[in-house]
Amino acid sequence: MKKLIAFITLLSFNIGVFAQRSGDYVQYVNPLIGTQKMGHTYPGATVPFGSVQLSPDTDEQPHNIGGKYNKDTYKYCAGYQYDDSEIVGFSHTHFSGTGHSDLGDFLVMPTVGPLQLEPGKKGEPKSGFRSAFSHANETAEAGYYKVRLDDDNILAEMTTTTRVGFHQYTFPTASNDAHIVLDMMHGIYDYADKNVWTFARVEGDRRIVGYRQTNGWARTRTVYFAMEFSKPFKSYGYKEFGKQDYKGFWRKFDQTKNFPEMAGKQLRAHFDFDVKQNEKVQVKFAISPVSMDGAAENMKAELRHWDFERARRDAQDEWNRELGKIDVTTLDKGEKINFYTALYHTFLSPTVYQDTSGHYRGIDQREHWSPGFTNYTTFSLWDTYRALHPLLNLIQPRRNKDMVASMVAHYDQSVHKMLPVWSHYANENWCMIGYHSVSVISDAIVTGNITGPEANKALDASAQTARQKYYDGLEYYMKLGYVPEDKNSSSVSKTLEYAYDDWAIAQAAKKLGKTAIYDEFIKRSENWKNVYDSSVGFTRPKSSDGTFLAKFDPLKTEGQGFIEGNAWNYSLYVPHDPAEMIKMMGGKRKFAAHLDELFTMHLPDEFFAETEDITREGIIGGYIHGNEPAHHVAYLYNWTDDAWKTQERVRMILKNQYKPTPDGLGGNDDCGQMSAWYLFSALGFYPVAPASGQYQLGSPVVKTAVISLENGKKLTIEAQNQSDKNVYVESVSLNGRKIDRKYLTFAEINGGGKLVFKMANKPTV
Amino acid sequence: MKKLIAFITLLSFNIGVFAQRSGDYVQYVNPLIGTQKMGHTYPGATVPFGSVQLSPDTDEQPHNIGGKYNKDTYKYCAGYQYDDSEIVGFSHTHFSGTGHSDLGDFLVMPTVGPLQLEPGKKGEPKSGFRSAFSHANETAEAGYYKVRLDDDNILAEMTTTTRVGFHQYTFPTASNDAHIVLDMMHGIYDYADKNVWTFARVEGDRRIVGYRQTNGWARTRTVYFAMEFSKPFKSYGYKEFGKQDYKGFWRKFDQTKNFPEMAGKQLRAHFDFDVKQNEKVQVKFAISPVSMDGAAENMKAELRHWDFERARRDAQDEWNRELGKIDVTTLDKGEKINFYTALYHTFLSPTVYQDTSGHYRGIDQREHWSPGFTNYTTFSLWDTYRALHPLLNLIQPRRNKDMVASMVAHYDQSVHKMLPVWSHYANENWCMIGYHSVSVISDAIVTGNITGPEANKALDASAQTARQKYYDGLEYYMKLGYVPEDKNSSSVSKTLEYAYDDWAIAQAAKKLGKTAIYDEFIKRSENWKNVYDSSVGFTRPKSSDGTFLAKFDPLKTEGQGFIEGNAWNYSLYVPHDPAEMIKMMGGKRKFAAHLDELFTMHLPDEFFAETEDITREGIIGGYIHGNEPAHHVAYLYNWTDDAWKTQERVRMILKNQYKPTPDGLGGNDDCGQMSAWYLFSALGFYPVAPASGQYQLGSPVVKTAVISLENGKKLTIEAQNQSDKNVYVESVSLNGRKIDRKYLTFAEINGGGKLVFKMANKPTV
Repeated sequence: MKKLIAFITLLSFNIGVFAQRSGDYVQYVNPLIGTQKMGHTYPGATVPFGSVQLSPDTDEQPHNIGGKYNKDTYKYCAGYQYDDSEIVGFSHTHFSGTGHSDLGDFLVMPTVGPLQLEPGKKGEPKSGFRSAFSHANETAEAGYYKVRLDDDNILAEMTTTTRVGFHQYTFPTASNDAHIVLDMMHGIYDYADKNVWTFARVEGDRRIVGYRQTNGWARTRTVYFAMEFSKPFKSYGYKEFGKQDYKGFWRKFDQTKNFPEMAGKQLRAHFDFDVKQNEKVQVKFAISPVSMDGAAENMKAELRHWDFERARRDAQDEWNRELGKIDVTTLDKGEKINFYTALYHTFLSPTVYQDTSGHYRGIDQREHWSPGFTNYTTFSLWDTYRALHPLLNLIQPRRNKDMVASMVAHYDQSVHKMLPVWSHYANENWCMIGYHSVSVISDAIVTGNITGPEANKALDASAQTARQKYYDGLEYYMKLGYVPEDKNSSSVSKTLEYAYDDWAIAQAAKKLGKTAIYDEFIKRSENWKNVYDSSVGFTRPKSSDGTFLAKFDPLKTEGQGFIEGNAWNYSLYVPHDPAEMIKMMGGKRKFAAHLDELFTMHLPDEFFAETEDITREGIIGGYIHGNEPAHHVAYLYNWTDDAWKTQERVRMILKNQYKPTPDGLGGNDDCGQMSAWYLFSALGFYPVAPASGQYQLGSPVVKTAVISLENGKKLTIEAQNQSDKNVYVESVSLNGRKIDRKYLTFAEINGGGKLVFKMANKPTV
Repeated sequence: MKKLIAFITLLSFNIGVFAQRSGDYVQYVNPLIGTQKMGHTYPGATVPFGSVQLSPDTDEQPHNIGGKYNKDTYKYCAGYQYDDSEIVGFSHTHFSGTGHSDLGDFLVMPTVGPLQLEPGKKGEPKSGFRSAFSHANETAEAGYYKVRLDDDNILAEMTTTTRVGFHQYTFPTASNDAHIVLDMMHGIYDYADKNVWTFARVEGDRRIVGYRQTNGWARTRTVYFAMEFSKPFKSYGYKEFGKQDYKGFWRKFDQTKNFPEMAGKQLRAHFDFDVKQNEKVQVKFAISPVSMDGAAENMKAELRHWDFERARRDAQDEWNRELGKIDVTTLDKGEKINFYTALYHTFLSPTVYQDTSGHYRGIDQREHWSPGFTNYTTFSLWDTYRALHPLLNLIQPRRNKDMVASMVAHYDQSVHKMLPVWSHYANENWCMIGYHSVSVISDAIVTGNITGPEANKALDASAQTARQKYYDGLEYYMKLGYVPEDKNSSSVSKTLEYAYDDWAIAQAAKKLGKTAIYDEFIKRSENWKNVYDSSVGFTRPKSSDGTFLAKFDPLKTEGQGFIEGNAWNYSLYVPHDPAEMIKMMGGKRKFAAHLDELFTMHLPDEFFAETEDITREGIIGGYIHGNEPAHHVAYLYNWTDDAWKTQERVRMILKNQYKPTPDGLGGNDDCGQMSAWYLFSALGFYPVAPASGQYQLGSPVVKTAVISLENGKKLTIEAQNQSDKNVYVESVSLNGRKIDRKYLTFAEINGGGKLVFKMANKPTV
């Protein structure tokens, strides 16, 4: 019953005509989208690219149970699952949409009555400090989250600044037994023993500082905090749940009561209050990558007052400013919610990883100061080089430039002399494959977003990264022209992606006139050919002796030389030279038929079951949209004589894979990559090969869009005759001039003006 | 046989006439004194008050074996036991003489042949990287240590600067299989799971930086390092011996080989070399309380060159400068060795805890900068307030002033607003009892070493510390005038020591004209009377209802209201008012007889067995010199009519309790307190009540002494007719004026001049 109410709440918008308040984009953002099933988004409060993501966690799932991998862990990558009916508490750091996880630092939870320091069991809210809740009493907005905690009828509200979480708890009745629990054990994607050390000092009667140090996905990670209550606590205490305790011989105190120094591996603290009826107790919680003082200074710099409504307004104003960079009209409100929620998701990460003073922790675990740029972290690059960074390079070029600067700083501080692969919180987790920082950098160089010495430095870092012999089969790749499967698994995926990355480096080198680097990498960029087996029409794993592996099933992923994609999907990964690939695969006609087969085939369950990332809905035929390797595939028809099929497929994917509901994402949003695909495609173009400076034309889903560029120009997009059926593009014109190729250039988009799509219900062949 | 040779080596000095090289005091320092049995000193290299104590560790004893306390651990408080015949390696931090322990950071060990990353089993040197050695091939000097490692015939030499250890390993034969092991798991007084985290980065082919974080006696402790080899290593690697490993999914590297990022809970690394015959491979190893960069800067600031002999010379010159503050002649070389080794031991701690840049870690776990003073750590105050700090206040007043500044900084940073109790490495371990910082501070104030605002601040900190209600029974003490045993154990010891500390605060208040503080604490200082039971003639534990506990045995320590001393010893602890105490105990004559009984009684084994700190030799009758509470007792005869007994007892203690041999200390040296007792007594006076400005006269053991004071003055002490039999003092004169009281004042000593003791073989009554 509760669920039904929630469902109605979520769908409570008018289909068709709806009011569009100018400048209020927040109303179209629904952070609950993607929180059900495999989206791995979180519903809580944050500001654009904010360091703090203050969000409810609905369960804690250990990574291992009895030494065995616990499959349920995966569901909780963002801490929250829509189907759960209890909230354990509100923690301050969350990834958005990742396929593996970490974080969940510093869980805060208000309770009334006898103190409970255990979260309790799932399904038994009274067994611990967790509380039942229902979606009917839940509001998730950009920059604001509210929920009623049913167990004690406490209203929990939260908003944030970049580095500070702001909690407001309204206690329904007077009590001399109110508590706010600070759980420093809690974490997301927890390993049996993820906490390395936690430390807290109670300084006075309102303030706590400390840190949490973990060994999780990030090997050596510390988050510092400063916490402040709006009123003094009357007492406090903590309990060490691990086996380590204060080891001095001289236990002169009852350390569990009002003892202001807390330290250990597994701590939960509580702060006790008398509250009046309807009294609001507020908590400000600042974090820092550097120090406790850094956290305290961040709080001072960003949130001096205790006016919750003002803070919420500030957060939402900030969202409106950022979301307003693209002003769209759509056929219905659902699509507009899709659009702005996607835009919201693309503005969540990378996140600011730096104190307001400019200090941050480097990959070398040292403290650094960056007066020249804002340092960012959480680079899910295998995902985000495809569309997220190209999107930011267009509509957030200043931030994207700082992100590149952050990557280059990482390179400088790296003892490997490598750019980030998948990095977060001053750690490299080496997740997935490739060295896709180089694509992000090259895209920024080729489009002129980075120039001069900065560009040269970034290019050198790219080339150096791509030459790191001991990295993931690169030595073989450089020697043999491909990664041999007998030496390094997922060898085909690696060969294909290295080849693309190499091409991207070559493009930047060309732009900067670095001939030697260009020659070196343009040659390497052809290596994809070495793993194409014309006898089967797929790329295929090769042994170091030069022969293709006998065992091969293009539907399978595991043990077939691929990762997160089978040969059907991955073999098409030559974004930098589709024309040549199509030639090798038998020419345009044969290739178009091949793509048709991909989109219409049936992928047997046994193959689908291999991936944990996506739902059945994340698949169209054999095309897997829920994972990234095929994200460019729908646009490949543009290289055949059937570009209309790109238009048709894109509109189909937009419709099938993105819905304005909690289960609206068919796979992990992957730090905004899935959403960036949506945004580009919804606007009518897509960067098949970032660093090409080209954006393949598809079929827009918006009616109109005005992109306000940072250079002061505006690009207005108009889809004439737009409708759900008019998915075909009859013609495209820019500033009145017809575009008779299949792509736009960066200069065209960035130059602003008017881009008109004439839509039709039949293909124009 | 090997042992016999060593023994002869150690005793190879001439009794009687011996050459005395002027200015070379190092020759009289034997760091091996106290390394056998319970002295808990270490033989390795260090400079005065140095941060680095680079010393061999002869075994690793876990604190617990199968959940049970391992008694052998205690022997290894300084890492080295003279009776052992193997060295595990050389680590960089050691306490001197403590009765509990920690540290042992970063063990380095050279080996040749197949790599061994386990230390191996005791008694089986070939089972691991440990090596057999013999004392015949060992040289321990102030600032220099040398030993031949028999397993591979490697000559190991070491010296240090304040913050940098300098190793020199001479490999006997050419080898392409030489290794230097860096063991980051190793520790002293290890708990089953003391390591919290360790981290190392190989930066280039000669340099490693990193840190070790432990949860031992210090709860939250991190030591950072920078290590540099004199030549490039050809390869390296590490192994994680704990269960935690790099948890990223993507193990793209063989992390154990030439992978420059090491992190985990239990790491041992190795660095591999080709060596020629007799090639020396050197290692510089800097530490920092603050950061890896701090360590690297310390190395740069203190040790730029690779000239080992020069570094050794610098270290020993520094020792000669410091040891030369007291220039003595003695009856024989053995006594001179006793004297300078004691002086050496008093100059080992507190240790500098600050980078050369002035940065240090505070008790609040924050980084601080102290431009105004050098920050020190390792304050074993229950021991050292008695004689060590009074000694430093006399002959190292600048350093002692900085130590007080360090204590006050600790207070400022303490969330308890308390001065240190027993602190080390930015942690309070709360060891033992009392708040004896106040004694050190008051002594410095009363003697005029600290004045003005600095003194007022320190006094306020003292008073505030003594008012911290939740500390160790203080609330009851303030309410009832004593600590009640039913509320807090060791209650009599605490009451007695609080009363003395309170008196010390009052003296400082008087000096600074702070009447309110004086009144408050002079009143508290009489609280010792509340635990004196005239019916038995001892202090005795009292219940909170005001009655003495029925069960009472003045020979027993455990469960009797005392700690590290029974009622026989502890009841005499009223150093600030012996006259009143003697009156209460029946007058001078009865009291002298009581003292006689103490020094001549037999302490049954069952009572002795209760203490782990001392050997049987640490006891004279029932007087326990091996622990501190009775350190003033021999001087109490001065308040009776039998002052000659003080002279006799003191000389007896000097002779029995201090010997120039490895087993020469009868108990823990306790960070120099035992040695400071020796030095004062050897010079002829002792501070029974620090902060009184008085030093009770005893019987000097030196023939002459010249104390060079920092104020430029010199005090020359002459013991006329000095001999082993002339232990009685016939008269004392200062600058020609006869002293007809039993004490000297601070002003007299500090004013310089000539102090003449006329010695005799019979008491002067």
